[in-house]
Amino acid sequence: MVTELPLLLTPGPLTTTEATKVAMLRDWGSRDKAFIELTAMLRHRLVDLINGRNSYTCVPIAGTGTSAIEAMMSTLIHPKSHSLLLVNGEYGRRIAKMLTLTKKSFIAAELDESIPFDNNAVTHLLDSNSSIDNVILVHCETTTGLLNRLPEISELASKRKKKLFVDAMSSFGAISIDTSKIKVDAIAASSNKCLEGVPGLAFVLAKKSLINKSAGISNSLTLDLHDQWQGLEGNGQWRFTPPTQVVAALNTALDLLDSEGGMDQRYERYSENCQVLISGMRKLGFHTYLKAEDQAPIIVTFHMPKDINFTFQAFYDFLAKRGFLIYPGKLTKHPSFRIGCIGHVKQKDFQQLLSTVEKALKSLGVKLPMENSFGKE
Amino acid sequence: MVTELPLLLTPGPLTTTEATKVAMLRDWGSRDKAFIELTAMLRHRLVDLINGRNSYTCVPIAGTGTSAIEAMMSTLIHPKSHSLLLVNGEYGRRIAKMLTLTKKSFIAAELDESIPFDNNAVTHLLDSNSSIDNVILVHCETTTGLLNRLPEISELASKRKKKLFVDAMSSFGAISIDTSKIKVDAIAASSNKCLEGVPGLAFVLAKKSLINKSAGISNSLTLDLHDQWQGLEGNGQWRFTPPTQVVAALNTALDLLDSEGGMDQRYERYSENCQVLISGMRKLGFHTYLKAEDQAPIIVTFHMPKDINFTFQAFYDFLAKRGFLIYPGKLTKHPSFRIGCIGHVKQKDFQQLLSTVEKALKSLGVKLPMENSFGKE
Repeated sequence: MVTELPLLLTPGPLTTTEATKVAMLRDWGSRDKAFIELTAMLRHRLVDLINGRNSYTCVPIAGTGTSAIEAMMSTLIHPKSHSLLLVNGEYGRRIAKMLTLTKKSFIAAELDESIPFDNNAVTHLLDSNSSIDNVILVHCETTTGLLNRLPEISELASKRKKKLFVDAMSSFGAISIDTSKIKVDAIAASSNKCLEGVPGLAFVLAKKSLINKSAGISNSLTLDLHDQWQGLEGNGQWRFTPPTQVVAALNTALDLLDSEGGMDQRYERYSENCQVLISGMRKLGFHTYLKAEDQAPIIVTFHMPKDINFTFQAFYDFLAKRGFLIYPGKLTKHPSFRIGCIGHVKQKDFQQLLSTVEKALKSLGVKLPMENSFGKE
Repeated sequence: MVTELPLLLTPGPLTTTEATKVAMLRDWGSRDKAFIELTAMLRHRLVDLINGRNSYTCVPIAGTGTSAIEAMMSTLIHPKSHSLLLVNGEYGRRIAKMLTLTKKSFIAAELDESIPFDNNAVTHLLDSNSSIDNVILVHCETTTGLLNRLPEISELASKRKKKLFVDAMSSFGAISIDTSKIKVDAIAASSNKCLEGVPGLAFVLAKKSLINKSAGISNSLTLDLHDQWQGLEGNGQWRFTPPTQVVAALNTALDLLDSEGGMDQRYERYSENCQVLISGMRKLGFHTYLKAEDQAPIIVTFHMPKDINFTFQAFYDFLAKRGFLIYPGKLTKHPSFRIGCIGHVKQKDFQQLLSTVEKALKSLGVKLPMENSFGKE
């Protein structure tokens, strides 16, 4: 009864396991004991993923990952504080919009979309902007698949007593953030990325000491994490109707993360997917946008081929008809497309994808191997 | 594989059909053609439910029903306008919080929770507050189950050229709002009430002429209905990751609404449920909080029995163990509890409930029929 196809090679929603979807075949009373227990368990499990049981709390929110980031900005960034926002992609720019709407004071430091924020870049920024209270970082920029250097930035921020807020949307569940080693104040993520749940649920993992001081800050009832947290801590219930089936699916997805061996094992599987994908695509003549050392094994951006017979829509449709959904590009300067490495997908899926990509190129009349692509000449 | 129990006799999430849950057993690419088509179809179907194809548009939003109401307040209430908020329960008070947070000018007119807003009450309010631009009404107050008189209020507002905003959360899908007869400017509702979908999706049905003028008004990115609408009208895609499975479930739930015979037939079924429930509970000595003419067939509030052997927790647990989840009360002044009439439930379910209620009372040592209850002496 479970529909197997298509395989989602996107940044999410992703291909999930049958067990995760089957977990949705139940109606839950959202204020009943069984659901209160499920919620409590889920919150604990998510806190445990960052090794944060003593200092952190998990505040789930019904809605998109973006809503969790906006809730974090709206509730946990103090109105009188000043923030440094590190931008090297669309998701960083989206946070700038949120900070503007919630009237928070900030400066946005923007790097080219191919260049990661690391120790050097951020040291300079922090040392030349002494009034900064908070640093805001997108861990893995889904725009490109680029990995910003969270451990280095965390150390810099921590030494200077700056708070650190992390958009870990596309990394959470695959790239470990152990808070006993990496100091962060709050992290936002969602159910439907590397945790391999279904979409409709997101969450913020925040220091208890921080959220405890955030009453009355949010300019929205829906996005008020303090209010949501107080409700959950009070009677264990969500303030407003939770997406019960999506919550149950995430709990099952966490079982599967455990049985896979945890986040390090998942990182290994995604890395293998990524290597198979990149080396196979290179053989066909595709070029990756990022340098290898900056590439997270989450999603890969490829330059659009220049062959006049190649059109992205025809390429996309050929793959989609055969059960592979890839993703359009989001670069501001270069024509590109993306293929995700995450979700319930394995090397053999990428091998099948690659042979289908080759067929697609031949069917379009593209000469193989291709000789160049946009942006790489 | 579908878990049948418990039966949810609450204001939502509700008992849904097996087909609705089975519709979730698929992964969708949220930017793929198939999902774009599903979204377009769903938006049209929801607009058709209010007979609004020419003048209205549907803007779905991932999250709670409350988030759709807040999005409506945040985006569609003009910052320079003045609103009359009609309050006779918790959900009206919740809207007051939203208006305050979004810094909108309003007066709240509050009636006792047992008294509906009707022609008389609202005529007086409108005639004594000439500066009002907007009227905001909760159609059915879930706090009590009370039905406010939308057709009367719509006529008053329309004649005086006031805009009318309706929180139809717990009525939508069962109590018809035909916009060729009832003039409204925007309606907010959700997937998991009388439409009998699963929770995690809500929507606003708004006049196109109104939403078209609402750019840049919202103080939130997530809750910006204009931005969401522009995205959907542009390329058919949601701006941010939609709850794909929940969307698919709602589409199947709408098929079932059609095959039941539409909203009038659903209203009939719920009315029968409500009558069986009330008459059976009265025989046991329970008293309803509302007068019969003010009771919507959505959820019924009962006064808490006074018998010293009755405790709500023990009563709730007895029923829950046997597969019936009822709901606590929310009245400000009187001890009460609630039982919902909505969802995929029928007369026979209420007959079984009533015999279980009788067993519960006997097991608690309550003398039958009970002689009085709180608030009715």
